[in-house]
Amino acid sequence: MYGGKGMDREISPAVIKRMPRYYRYLEDLVEARVERISSNELSEQMHVTASQIRQDLSNFGGFGQQGYGYNVKNLHDEIGRILGLDEMHNIIIIGAGNMGTAIANYIRFEDLSFKVTGIFDVSPEKIGKSICSKKVRSMDELADFTENNHVDIAVLTLPRDNAAATAEILISLGIKAIWNFAHVDLNVPDDVVVQNVHLSDSLMQLSFILTNANH
Amino acid sequence: MYGGKGMDREISPAVIKRMPRYYRYLEDLVEARVERISSNELSEQMHVTASQIRQDLSNFGGFGQQGYGYNVKNLHDEIGRILGLDEMHNIIIIGAGNMGTAIANYIRFEDLSFKVTGIFDVSPEKIGKSICSKKVRSMDELADFTENNHVDIAVLTLPRDNAAATAEILISLGIKAIWNFAHVDLNVPDDVVVQNVHLSDSLMQLSFILTNANH
Repeated sequence: MYGGKGMDREISPAVIKRMPRYYRYLEDLVEARVERISSNELSEQMHVTASQIRQDLSNFGGFGQQGYGYNVKNLHDEIGRILGLDEMHNIIIIGAGNMGTAIANYIRFEDLSFKVTGIFDVSPEKIGKSICSKKVRSMDELADFTENNHVDIAVLTLPRDNAAATAEILISLGIKAIWNFAHVDLNVPDDVVVQNVHLSDSLMQLSFILTNANH
Repeated sequence: MYGGKGMDREISPAVIKRMPRYYRYLEDLVEARVERISSNELSEQMHVTASQIRQDLSNFGGFGQQGYGYNVKNLHDEIGRILGLDEMHNIIIIGAGNMGTAIANYIRFEDLSFKVTGIFDVSPEKIGKSICSKKVRSMDELADFTENNHVDIAVLTLPRDNAAATAEILISLGIKAIWNFAHVDLNVPDDVVVQNVHLSDSLMQLSFILTNANH
C-alpha cells in the first residue's frame, strides 16, 4: 500500500506510527547539536529496543554504519523526507471553534511543512473573524476556494452530527486527506486517507487503564 | 497488568484500544433503539471481522448467546462498566489556552463520567477568566487544590518546554493519570498512567501516508 519514494516493500502501520516519534527525538538531538548516536543510545532515550530501531530504519534502507552509529542530521533529514516533511502541505480547517483555533495555532508554530490556507465555519458569529491572521470564511465559499487553491489536507473539527456530511462534500471537491477530530468514523473511498484523533476514545482508554490497573 | 473488576487475565493494548470504539457504536445503537445485534451485523457496521468482535468481547466474559446476538443495552452498559464509565472521574486541566478550552468544552458535552473540576494556568491574562463557568486558577493554587479535592486525571495542554516539569509537580501531588497533549513523551513512575495525544505524530503519519501512498 505504501511504497513510494523508492521503497520496495510495504511498510506496516506499526512502523508508520513509530516514525514520527523517531523524528521528534532526532529533532531534539539536532537542536542539542549531537552529531552521532548509536542505536543503543537512541534506544535508551526512547525506551524501545535497539534491535527495534535498527529493524524499523532498515525498512527505508541502511542509515547507520556498523560500529559508527547514525549521523543525527542525516537521519533526521532522511526520516523527514520519508514522512513527506520536505514538501509543503496546504491545510484547510473546517470548524472555527476552540479545537479549530487550537489546531491553527499549533500548525503555525510547527515547522514549515504545513500551512493553514483557509478556515471555514457555518456560524455567522465566527465568519469574518480572524484566527492566526486568517479570516474565517463561510462554508458557502468552500467549493470556490478548493477550485482556486490546492488543498492537501482538510481538518474536520465539527460536532459528529455534521461530520459525515461535510466529509462527503470535501471528498466531492477532490480532497484526498482528512484529519478527523469528530467523534465518528468516516466511511471514505479507497483513495482518500483519514487520520483520526478520537479524543473520546483516548479518554476512555485512560479511564479503562485507571479502573483496571492492578498497580 | 490490567485485570481488575473480576478479570482473570491480562488484556492486550490492542483490545484496550478497540473497546472505546465498540462503546461508541453501541451508544449509537442504543440511541437508535436497536435491541439486539449479531456479531455479523456489528462487524459490517464497524468494518472489523465478526470473529474479532467475538474474540475481543470474550476477554470480558461471554456477552452473547449463540444464535441470538448481543443485547445492545446490556453490552453497552457492560462495556461502559469495563471502561470505568460507571464511575465519575474528576479532571483538572493544566493550560487554559485554545486546546485546554476545547477539552473543557468537549468534556462538558460528554456523558456524566468525567467532570472538569479545575482549570489552571500561569498567565495573568488567563487567570480569573471563566471557561465553561469554571474560573481559571493560578498554578500557585494547584497544591492546595489537589489537597482539598480528589483529582483522578490531569490534562496537560502546555508547550513542550514546560510539560515535563509540570508533570513532575502533578505526580508529586499524587496524581496518577495524565492525559498528555504536550508534544513530548513523559517519563513517569510505574504507578502513573500517561495517555498521549500527540497531534504532531498524528499529522506526520497523515503526511507519510499522503506522500507514500501508491494509490
